[in-house]
Amino acid sequence: MSKNAQLLIRAGYVHKEMAGVYDYLPLGLMVIDKIRNIIREEMNAIGCQEVSLSALQDPELWKKSGRWADDFIDVWFKTKLKSEAELGLGVSHEEPMVRMVGQYINSYRDLPLYVYQFQTKFRNELRAKSGIMRGREFLMKDMYSFCRSEAELDVFYDKAAEAYKKIYHRVGIGDKTYFTFASGGMFSKFSHEFQTVCDAGEDYIYIDDEKGIAVNDEVMQDEILESLGVKRENLRKEKSIEVGNIFKYGTRYTKELEVRFKDEEGNEHDGVNGAYGIGLGRVMGTVVELFADDKGIVWPESIAPFKVHLIELLGKDNFDAVKAKSLEFYDKFEKAGISVLYDDRDLRAGEKFGDADLMGLPWRVTVSDRTLASGLYELKNRKTGEVKMVNEADLFKM
Amino acid sequence: MSKNAQLLIRAGYVHKEMAGVYDYLPLGLMVIDKIRNIIREEMNAIGCQEVSLSALQDPELWKKSGRWADDFIDVWFKTKLKSEAELGLGVSHEEPMVRMVGQYINSYRDLPLYVYQFQTKFRNELRAKSGIMRGREFLMKDMYSFCRSEAELDVFYDKAAEAYKKIYHRVGIGDKTYFTFASGGMFSKFSHEFQTVCDAGEDYIYIDDEKGIAVNDEVMQDEILESLGVKRENLRKEKSIEVGNIFKYGTRYTKELEVRFKDEEGNEHDGVNGAYGIGLGRVMGTVVELFADDKGIVWPESIAPFKVHLIELLGKDNFDAVKAKSLEFYDKFEKAGISVLYDDRDLRAGEKFGDADLMGLPWRVTVSDRTLASGLYELKNRKTGEVKMVNEADLFKM
Repeated sequence: MSKNAQLLIRAGYVHKEMAGVYDYLPLGLMVIDKIRNIIREEMNAIGCQEVSLSALQDPELWKKSGRWADDFIDVWFKTKLKSEAELGLGVSHEEPMVRMVGQYINSYRDLPLYVYQFQTKFRNELRAKSGIMRGREFLMKDMYSFCRSEAELDVFYDKAAEAYKKIYHRVGIGDKTYFTFASGGMFSKFSHEFQTVCDAGEDYIYIDDEKGIAVNDEVMQDEILESLGVKRENLRKEKSIEVGNIFKYGTRYTKELEVRFKDEEGNEHDGVNGAYGIGLGRVMGTVVELFADDKGIVWPESIAPFKVHLIELLGKDNFDAVKAKSLEFYDKFEKAGISVLYDDRDLRAGEKFGDADLMGLPWRVTVSDRTLASGLYELKNRKTGEVKMVNEADLFKM
Repeated sequence: MSKNAQLLIRAGYVHKEMAGVYDYLPLGLMVIDKIRNIIREEMNAIGCQEVSLSALQDPELWKKSGRWADDFIDVWFKTKLKSEAELGLGVSHEEPMVRMVGQYINSYRDLPLYVYQFQTKFRNELRAKSGIMRGREFLMKDMYSFCRSEAELDVFYDKAAEAYKKIYHRVGIGDKTYFTFASGGMFSKFSHEFQTVCDAGEDYIYIDDEKGIAVNDEVMQDEILESLGVKRENLRKEKSIEVGNIFKYGTRYTKELEVRFKDEEGNEHDGVNGAYGIGLGRVMGTVVELFADDKGIVWPESIAPFKVHLIELLGKDNFDAVKAKSLEFYDKFEKAGISVLYDDRDLRAGEKFGDADLMGLPWRVTVSDRTLASGLYELKNRKTGEVKMVNEADLFKM
C-alpha cells in the first residue's frame, strides 16, 4: 500500500472502503476542508463563482463532444435508468458545464464568466494503488473560464496560474511545485501541469532551475525546447506528482455545445474556453508523501486539522492537579483561537507521544506532574523535533 | 413541472440536467450552504462528528445486510469495475457507516458515538417529477448514532428529534412541520418523520392539534392510536412533505456488521444504533413550495442567498449621482455585514422589480433619481409587500 494511505489510515484520517475508494474520517475531512477553503478563497479572489453540477451524466451530451465512447475515455463508470437508458458518472465536467453556460450566455456583456465547483469525480481506473492520490472516486475542484477572445483567455489563464501557485504555497508545497509545460492539443501549443517533486510520483519532469519552470515528457523535443528558450543540457530530471493542470480549450467545446455570444455589432462568436483542475485528495496525499518522516505525518500549519496536540500525562502524583491544569489549558487554547486536540486517554506516555508523532499536528504540549511542578511546559515542534520548556503565558501566544 | 423546479429554474437557482437531476447555480448553492450550515451547527451542538463516506458501494457489504438485491431496494444504480465486478451507488449509508464504526469500536469507553455526513445519494426512481424534492441524485445529511443500550439510544433519539425541530424552525418551516409517528419496523414500535403541511406534498398526515403531533397512514389503526393517546375523531388530515426521518434500528445492522463492544466486565454486546436523515434539496424545495406567491419565491432570511436586493434605476436625470449613490450603498451594506445583491443591469424598472420578486430576497432597496432627490429610499419587504420610505441612516441598521 502507498505510504500516504498507510499513514492516513493508521493515524485515523481516512478509511479504505475498497481499492481506490476512501472515506474521510473527522480529522481527514478537516484537512480536506482546509484545502477546500484555501482553493475557494483563491478562486473567489480572481472573480470565480461557485456552482455544483450533478455526478449523473447524460450520454447525448457527451456523444456531441465525441467523449462518450469507452475507447475515447476509458475510465467511464456507466449505469442505467429503469428505462434501460444509459447514464454515466462524471469523469470530468467540461460537457455539462459548457452546455449549461451556453444556455445563460447571449451577449458580449455576459462574458467573461468563471465558474467552478468542488465535485466528486468517478474514474474506473484499472488499478488503484496510489492511496488517496489516484482514486476511483475523488473530490476535485474544477474551474471553467469563458471569454470573448483568445487574448482575454490568455490574460485570465495567467491569472489562474498565479492563483494556483498561491494555493500550492499556502498548502505548503509551493517550493517543490513546478509550473510545467505539457502538450497543448488542438487549440493551443501548451497546456500546463503543476508538478510537485516527490519520490512517490508517477510522472517525470525536467526542471530548468534558472528559469524555475519544468517540462514534461511530451515537451522533450528539441524544437519545442528551443521555442521555450530552454536547453536540454540544463534540465534536471525528477520524479513528480501532478497536483493540478490547466488547459486552453479555445472553442473545442463551445462550438459543439453552443456557447455563442453576440458582439457589439450583433455578430455571433463562439466563446473561448479554458479549464483548471485540482484534486483535493491528491494535494493531501502529496503533502503526506513529501513531509512524513519515520515517525508519521507532518502537517503544514495551514492545513493541519488542529494546531496543538495537548497531551495530559496522569500519574500517581498530583493526579487531580494535572487533570485540572490540562482542562484549563484546553479552555485557554480554545479561547485564544488556537485549535487544539486534547488527548485525555488513559494510556502511557510512550503511546501518547507515538500517536502524536503519527498524527502530525504542528505543536505538542505536554502537561504532567513534572511540568506542573516546574511551571514550565514542554512544547515540541513536530517538523523540527525541537523541544522547548516554556512558561504558561508564552504557550498561548503561539 | 413542479412549482419549485419551475421557479428555481426561472429565477436562476438551479439548472435541470435531466429528469430528476439538478445542478445548483451560484444562488442555489448559497441557499444549500445556508441550510447545510444550520444543520451542521445543530448536529455539532449535540456532539456529532462530521465525516464523508464514498458513493461507490461494495456489494459484499450490502449482501450481508440483505439489501443488495433489487427486489429489496428497488432504486439501486449499479455499475461495474473493469474486472466486471459490480458496484452500487449509495442509496443510503447505513451499511458502510456501521461497518466502518465497528472497526474503531472495542470498549464501552468508545461509545456513544454520533457520526454524520453530507453526501450525495443516488436513487433510481422510476419517475422523478417533484423538482428538487425527489431527485435521482440529491444531497442528504445522514447521521448515525451508536449507543451502549436502548436506554442510551432513547435519550439521544429525543435529543436528535429536538435538534431536528430547531433546524426546521431556523430554516423557517417550523410552524408547519409536525413530528409524525410512523411504523417502526422490527426493532422499535415507531419511527418518526418530520412532515411539513403543504399542498405540494405526496404524503398525507393526520394531525392532533392539541398535542401538536401527527401520525402517518401506517399508524392509523385504532389500537396504535390508543397507545399514543390520540383519538381518531380529533385528527385533521393534511397533505404534507416528508422533510426528515429518524429511526431506531437497534441491533438490526450492528449485529450483522459487527459493531461489538466489551462492557466493564469484559462481556461483549452489539452496539445499539439509530439513523437520522434530512434531504437538503427537499428542505429547499419545501420552502419554495410553502412561501412562493404569484410573483415568485419568498425566502426566509435565514436561508436567503442575500438579505438585500439593491436596485439601481438609471434614467436621463442625475445618471451619475444615482450610479454613485448605488455604489455607495453597496459598499455600506457590505461594510455593515448585510449581504447584498446589486442589480446594476441596464433594464427598465418593471423588469428589475419583476426579477427581484421572482428571486425572493427578503428586502428590496431602490435607488433612483426620485428617491435621491427626497433623501428617502424605498424599502420593500418581499414577504409582506410592505413599502416604506426610509432615510439613509436607517437603511443600514436593518
